[in-house]
Amino acid sequence: MNLEIITIGNELLIGQVVDTNSAWMGVELNKRGFDVSRVTSVQDTADAIISSLKEALDRVDIILMTGGLGPTNDDITKKTLAEFFGVGLVFNEQAYADLCELLKGRVSHINDQNRGQAYVPENCEVIRNPVGTAPVMWFEQNGKIIVSMPGVPSEMKQAMEYEIMPRLTNRFPTGHIIHKTVLVYNIPEAVLAEQLTGWESCLPSFISLAYLPAPGRIRLRLSARSQDEQTAQAAIEKAVKELYPIIGDHIFSEEDKSAQELLGDQLRGSGLTVAVAESCTGGRIGHLITSIAGSSEYFVGGVMAYANEVKHELLKVTNDDLMNHGAVSQQVVEQMALGVKALLGTDYSVATSGIAGPGGATEEKPVGTVWIAVAGPDGVKSELFCFGGYRERNIHRSADMALILLIRLIEGKY
Amino acid sequence: MNLEIITIGNELLIGQVVDTNSAWMGVELNKRGFDVSRVTSVQDTADAIISSLKEALDRVDIILMTGGLGPTNDDITKKTLAEFFGVGLVFNEQAYADLCELLKGRVSHINDQNRGQAYVPENCEVIRNPVGTAPVMWFEQNGKIIVSMPGVPSEMKQAMEYEIMPRLTNRFPTGHIIHKTVLVYNIPEAVLAEQLTGWESCLPSFISLAYLPAPGRIRLRLSARSQDEQTAQAAIEKAVKELYPIIGDHIFSEEDKSAQELLGDQLRGSGLTVAVAESCTGGRIGHLITSIAGSSEYFVGGVMAYANEVKHELLKVTNDDLMNHGAVSQQVVEQMALGVKALLGTDYSVATSGIAGPGGATEEKPVGTVWIAVAGPDGVKSELFCFGGYRERNIHRSADMALILLIRLIEGKY
Repeated sequence: MNLEIITIGNELLIGQVVDTNSAWMGVELNKRGFDVSRVTSVQDTADAIISSLKEALDRVDIILMTGGLGPTNDDITKKTLAEFFGVGLVFNEQAYADLCELLKGRVSHINDQNRGQAYVPENCEVIRNPVGTAPVMWFEQNGKIIVSMPGVPSEMKQAMEYEIMPRLTNRFPTGHIIHKTVLVYNIPEAVLAEQLTGWESCLPSFISLAYLPAPGRIRLRLSARSQDEQTAQAAIEKAVKELYPIIGDHIFSEEDKSAQELLGDQLRGSGLTVAVAESCTGGRIGHLITSIAGSSEYFVGGVMAYANEVKHELLKVTNDDLMNHGAVSQQVVEQMALGVKALLGTDYSVATSGIAGPGGATEEKPVGTVWIAVAGPDGVKSELFCFGGYRERNIHRSADMALILLIRLIEGKY
Repeated sequence: MNLEIITIGNELLIGQVVDTNSAWMGVELNKRGFDVSRVTSVQDTADAIISSLKEALDRVDIILMTGGLGPTNDDITKKTLAEFFGVGLVFNEQAYADLCELLKGRVSHINDQNRGQAYVPENCEVIRNPVGTAPVMWFEQNGKIIVSMPGVPSEMKQAMEYEIMPRLTNRFPTGHIIHKTVLVYNIPEAVLAEQLTGWESCLPSFISLAYLPAPGRIRLRLSARSQDEQTAQAAIEKAVKELYPIIGDHIFSEEDKSAQELLGDQLRGSGLTVAVAESCTGGRIGHLITSIAGSSEYFVGGVMAYANEVKHELLKVTNDDLMNHGAVSQQVVEQMALGVKALLGTDYSVATSGIAGPGGATEEKPVGTVWIAVAGPDGVKSELFCFGGYRERNIHRSADMALILLIRLIEGKY
């Protein structure tokens, strides 16, 4: 079942806001057997909204719209939809009661702009929005469904999860679609593609394959669509199993999760603890680990050892090694990992030291040179990476690779 | 001058990749007086690519396409464009030489899939791509321009910056467009809008206004478009000046930069240093600070004090206060800020302690309760925030607010 998304807002087109909503919607709809066949981002003008809506209605039966429902004058989605359907705006008591409840204690009084949010086109069904002041609107016309929801991600997600997707799956029972994403690391895409040519040509026709490169990894996504769930599942499993003899050493997970999620799955309930010592990553590894709910169970803390003095004084890296080998060296990164493990008394630790760039490079150590060390009960191991020229990417890849090596070490596979 | 962007790739529609390219392009094109009037994301099918291209050609004269140029079988943009124009693919010696050069040392040999990347539709002008293996293609037909470039952000940016945008600005001299973004914090959007109603109604007609909410701040963007740069500039400056009597206490910057960029601007060359002590933010403040090139000049390091033992042992928070007031308290967060400042010997420091959620809440301290402290030569100050219910948002808002308070303290305005 195809559907389209229309995201509304000048802020998307002038690039002041990145559209993360449609990606989230794509993932969630896909799991339920709906295909987003197109995403269109348009300006906050009646012309743009109406023309994109008309074109989408020519192609699909379901259109999900986000944005343009705020209290300010530049938000015109609601009156434009009323114009499109040729109806007036009416005051909705329930929406008003909900927004009063939500704003209670947050604002001194309900102003006219907030009150205006309780007006909706008279032909819509209002879906209550418990987390924001803009009501969600469900329209049906000539067998087609149009839903308009706020662009604020938390409000959109709430509406999609609890109201819109349940209604859609009820109305349009879909076949089974099964995705399996295999995470592969430390291999360039073209080499991977070449090694998998034979395997790929033997896949059954109802399985499609996509290479999704991401920093530090390639996500190999297999998708099977079938009326029969078991056939699809069995075919996917067989295909994945056949990958191991070809690229097994590079397969890092069969779950499409971030490294920090996989680490959390691994450590939760294990009683094991982790600490980090970060130089070039500057706190990103700690940030990734603690982005996972419940990470306080296994994450004790760490040291951002940006300056050499911090490496020496807190992590007990010797000044000799700092002087003779430089901060970006195997000697130093291993002492950092061992140092933070001892300092915080954890079972495992991970450390980074590298040249994120653009400054700091030398002839022997170009930008992107990064040492990563992981330490555990059996000692410390380290590896040198050369990630290339961009600061942000170097930091992200270093942190991601650090987590992957840590996971592999804890698994006993590193 | 309007133009449209078409982004190609199933990975965008099933949401496995967030389209950050079009946001970047929107910002850069806008600065140069081009308006992105629509962004369309379509699947990797010839039908979808051709139909979106035809529709866009009916509306605008310039179309920028990204994606679908990789070496693998699911990338079909190039052959689809050849089909669209009714031409064949030809081998391009220069593109092949460039990709050989780029892959030298990275792969053991150039395989067929890489070699295939040197084939291009015969009617295109090839723009060399020094940072990737896919050539950039420039087409002209009936006075319209179509550019196809890789979806890899670094390759797209390189092509846009050095080739595509210079060519476009040469061909289509645009009027002057001036944006000014005023950053406002600690005020809800509806309250802000209400307070600014009178001011907004007095803006000249060639200035447009947008409220761009972002976590922890609202970006108030004024845009003036005029043939006369000075008129536009003067009108914007007048409008911004008139904001101060109304909402001056909430204005945090007149530059549309991240807090970490503003902190960098403030500290670079000052000789002042900063350290961080992070509990609920878990490393994010350090990560933000060090995402700025050259931050090693003023960022010494910090402690991720997730566990209470780390707060006590490294940062010298008293066990009495941890016990009596809890980790999320004014007493503890102030000791954390002072502790890390003393430990690392910096001029300034910032500390966070809060309940990011979803667990850990109590009756008096719900999820989103966050204490932030900043310390400097004149002592320590702290403030309590209640950010609400979502872990990720709490972490992001806490880190962002911590940087804002730090900047205000260093400015002498906190």
